[in-house]
Amino acid sequence: MTIPPWKPIADAKRQATLDAIPPKWRITEPIPSPAEQRDVTGPYIQQYLSTREIEITELDAYAIAEKTTSGEWTAVEVTEAFCHRAALAHQFVSCLHEIFFDAAIEDAKKLDAYFAEHKKPLGPLHGLPVSLKDQFHVKDVETTMGYVGWIGTFQGIKADARRGVFESELVRELRALGAVLYCKTSVPATLMCGETVNNIITYTTNPKNRLLACGGSSGGEGALIALKGSPGGFGTDIGGSVRIPAVFNGLFGIRPSSGRIPYEGAANSMDGQNTILSVIGPLAGSARSLQLLFKAVLSQQPWLYDPLVLEVPWRSDIEQETRALVEQSAKDPSKLAFAIMKHDGIVLPHPPIARALDIVEQTLKRLGHKVIEWNPPSHATAVKLASAAYALDGGADVKYHFDLSGEGPAPQVIVGGNLPQKNAMEIAQINVAKREYQKLYMDYWNSTAELTGTGRPVDAVLCPAAAHAAVIPTQYVHVGYTSFLNLLDYTGVVFPVTNADKAVDVAQRETFLSELDERSYRGYHAEVYDGAPAGVQLFGRRLQEEKLLVLAEYVSAAVAGAGA
Amino acid sequence: MTIPPWKPIADAKRQATLDAIPPKWRITEPIPSPAEQRDVTGPYIQQYLSTREIEITELDAYAIAEKTTSGEWTAVEVTEAFCHRAALAHQFVSCLHEIFFDAAIEDAKKLDAYFAEHKKPLGPLHGLPVSLKDQFHVKDVETTMGYVGWIGTFQGIKADARRGVFESELVRELRALGAVLYCKTSVPATLMCGETVNNIITYTTNPKNRLLACGGSSGGEGALIALKGSPGGFGTDIGGSVRIPAVFNGLFGIRPSSGRIPYEGAANSMDGQNTILSVIGPLAGSARSLQLLFKAVLSQQPWLYDPLVLEVPWRSDIEQETRALVEQSAKDPSKLAFAIMKHDGIVLPHPPIARALDIVEQTLKRLGHKVIEWNPPSHATAVKLASAAYALDGGADVKYHFDLSGEGPAPQVIVGGNLPQKNAMEIAQINVAKREYQKLYMDYWNSTAELTGTGRPVDAVLCPAAAHAAVIPTQYVHVGYTSFLNLLDYTGVVFPVTNADKAVDVAQRETFLSELDERSYRGYHAEVYDGAPAGVQLFGRRLQEEKLLVLAEYVSAAVAGAGA
Repeated sequence: MTIPPWKPIADAKRQATLDAIPPKWRITEPIPSPAEQRDVTGPYIQQYLSTREIEITELDAYAIAEKTTSGEWTAVEVTEAFCHRAALAHQFVSCLHEIFFDAAIEDAKKLDAYFAEHKKPLGPLHGLPVSLKDQFHVKDVETTMGYVGWIGTFQGIKADARRGVFESELVRELRALGAVLYCKTSVPATLMCGETVNNIITYTTNPKNRLLACGGSSGGEGALIALKGSPGGFGTDIGGSVRIPAVFNGLFGIRPSSGRIPYEGAANSMDGQNTILSVIGPLAGSARSLQLLFKAVLSQQPWLYDPLVLEVPWRSDIEQETRALVEQSAKDPSKLAFAIMKHDGIVLPHPPIARALDIVEQTLKRLGHKVIEWNPPSHATAVKLASAAYALDGGADVKYHFDLSGEGPAPQVIVGGNLPQKNAMEIAQINVAKREYQKLYMDYWNSTAELTGTGRPVDAVLCPAAAHAAVIPTQYVHVGYTSFLNLLDYTGVVFPVTNADKAVDVAQRETFLSELDERSYRGYHAEVYDGAPAGVQLFGRRLQEEKLLVLAEYVSAAVAGAGA
Repeated sequence: MTIPPWKPIADAKRQATLDAIPPKWRITEPIPSPAEQRDVTGPYIQQYLSTREIEITELDAYAIAEKTTSGEWTAVEVTEAFCHRAALAHQFVSCLHEIFFDAAIEDAKKLDAYFAEHKKPLGPLHGLPVSLKDQFHVKDVETTMGYVGWIGTFQGIKADARRGVFESELVRELRALGAVLYCKTSVPATLMCGETVNNIITYTTNPKNRLLACGGSSGGEGALIALKGSPGGFGTDIGGSVRIPAVFNGLFGIRPSSGRIPYEGAANSMDGQNTILSVIGPLAGSARSLQLLFKAVLSQQPWLYDPLVLEVPWRSDIEQETRALVEQSAKDPSKLAFAIMKHDGIVLPHPPIARALDIVEQTLKRLGHKVIEWNPPSHATAVKLASAAYALDGGADVKYHFDLSGEGPAPQVIVGGNLPQKNAMEIAQINVAKREYQKLYMDYWNSTAELTGTGRPVDAVLCPAAAHAAVIPTQYVHVGYTSFLNLLDYTGVVFPVTNADKAVDVAQRETFLSELDERSYRGYHAEVYDGAPAGVQLFGRRLQEEKLLVLAEYVSAAVAGAGA
């Protein structure tokens, strides 16, 4: 068999990333196979770390920032601990595209010097390591986005003057906030995939259960943060690409509405497709950490630097109103009302996810909240329109980038190329159909005011984020549980609830909603899924980030408190 | 010559609109030709009105609403006065498509009954007549948008169940606010035109100078409000269609950023084209009236009913901050700084507009404000991209609607049909180029912080809204002075400054910026333009409506106070 010309280039790049790990942090003994050691988080990774490194890296981003912004911990010590842990994480699950620990430690030194001189932090993220999906440009660091053809170029163009020097707007803002950047995480080539597979790093597995996918497209983020090789990072989401890896890895993640976090100067797939815009959102180990990262970025007034960002600062009034509702509801739970959508009418969730939803529903009911049934406009329409939006160019953009090296798409990739391209009239029709669907959904949301007892429509809706707890590679048949929120441009937050448990999550169905439902069901294997994180999604309307972040904190804490 | 089949249908519709005028308000004597009587505003129209009717109709919307919301004037009396004056206006300049005075008076009676019962107004627009561009659907009233093929249909479809019963979201909100709806105003078929011409009403002339165009596409609004047949109304703007008729008719008009005023359920051209979105904005006789109408709509929380509206309420804090800046600047004018763009590098303004700009500049300087020169990124790029956006479908949409009746576009129409249609990749490239231009413009705006002395970038920029004071029919060669703000999605407000004066506005140029500039210059005839309103445009960044409405009030009052 002939070796394709792109393969040595991809192999060299993969090796270069491994070589960027300092020798002292390399694991020399063989790493056990996934079958021998599914879960490499927790005790498994801890064996390679000092007690102090464990102490540092196992706090959430919020708690770490408290220590680094107060001067209790130095940026250098925290950065070194995360660099070490990230290096280990990468050796277990192939979650990094780029490693720049030396630059990070230099930056951390400067932050420590700043603190020593000014007796105050540079910003709310002072000394906090933050990981980045490999779409963000960082000076002196490559961006491949998983394309072999991008190696040694700027977004595929060798002679581009921005190569090696340009930084994305979010990167500039994170630096201004005091964050320490140290690595970029793996993505599926094209970004249009619920797994993380490309010809450079090959495949990122799920660190909680390495038989499964880490999700995608911000898959490296999900895997790295689950291994606590990062306290929090930024991904992007056009159909679920923040929420899928977050929920697959037992994390929190938010898909904000478009226009809040600056995308300016980041690489992307199908740039200029504006029927459904990709958005940036953070992933982290706690709701309060998401809030810290989200709010910090808004404090930089990104609307002055990114023309697509709206002049909508962090709305403390909405945050406070929501916190007040939560507090009042301790005495009078009728102040807050939720809805639950147990399935979307297309694919039923696997047993672990159905159980996770049930745990949340029972928790809310035990707290005394009304939980109404969600009967929205057809989600099949949403799936159809979102699929159409992703395929407007018939895959021409991703084909162009694959063709740079001669490689091709992995079978899991949603938009593979060579489909017919839509024209202006057809695109306009899709845009109108999208708006009409948004209007129907909005009217339905409003109509729930008559059912909640609060005088308002539901405050948030619970639903699956995917049919499965992570997923067996190549078995992700339905992204409709995340993509409908992209079509609606609604706010969606995922959070962990429980883990798949082969003893209780037993499949026993004989009827199916659809052919897709049957395929999804046939892909459930209790033994393989055992141990995978099972989380859910809480969603609100467009631009409801402040409210949803508070509600996700409340609901997830209640669920955790109930001993889920 | 054969009469085309659409002509009798168009003629009958035109006659039906005239027939809707009560006999008592019909003018039976011949109306003088434009050459005999250019200006039909002021004393000319007053001769047909009672003193009381003049008293009512010559207040601005703000002052009328004070009287109708306090119960000082009844809704019925005010409505009847405006119905009468609108009937006269239509007979002078053909500015109405639809007349529904009887329904208006019935609605006014209900409002008066409401006030009598509750001792308070229904809302902030209680009893205020408001005119609507013929894109808004009102029950029992037709919407033709100037297409003969839409007569007797709903947007071209005869069997559509919404025909005669459906109302646009803005209409619902205006009713909830207490406004009285009584007429719909003329538009050019396609809406893509800076004049108002269609085969139904034929042509709407400028009431201040009937040798000239009233502007477009919200041309009927401009003409009607200039004749004080309406105190204020709503138009739409995709390339200048609110601002052009406002400024051509000596009025105030605002093009807000997209996402503030609900477009939901209104008819449109090229619906679903989302590279440059058409937006709705009010036109009125004063800045404070624009503010009343704009703020009133936002009080209805349109983001709960229109998926494209942003959850951005009227921001009183920004209004108050700007008012404070204005007040402080009376003592310390260095608190506010402006820029001026005397021309866009493509077409120089005609003498009346150059003089109007000069008046405003001198006024600001006399007040002590810094007025810097505006040297933005190339406006030629903006013109090219906006033109591309308008022609994405190659005119297929407007051709479809013309073909319903067999009529064709007027020569003035910008998008006439039969151009090649763009595909998804080409559209994506235009969207990217647009965003890159927006980013350049944004960075340029930020850079002025170093020049203003306020510590901030310029507060607003002055420029022409068109090269001419109104325009000689078919001579509108360059809409770049308005369309660049649509491309940028910036906030633009126009206001009146002076009138063209053949004695002072003498053309004497021999060099030209471009072939277009020469054509525009050759179209200037001091004698013909004499008397036409000459206004200018003040613009701010995206979503700066609160700030710009306050600044337009301040600057226009200063100009008026200086006796321009």
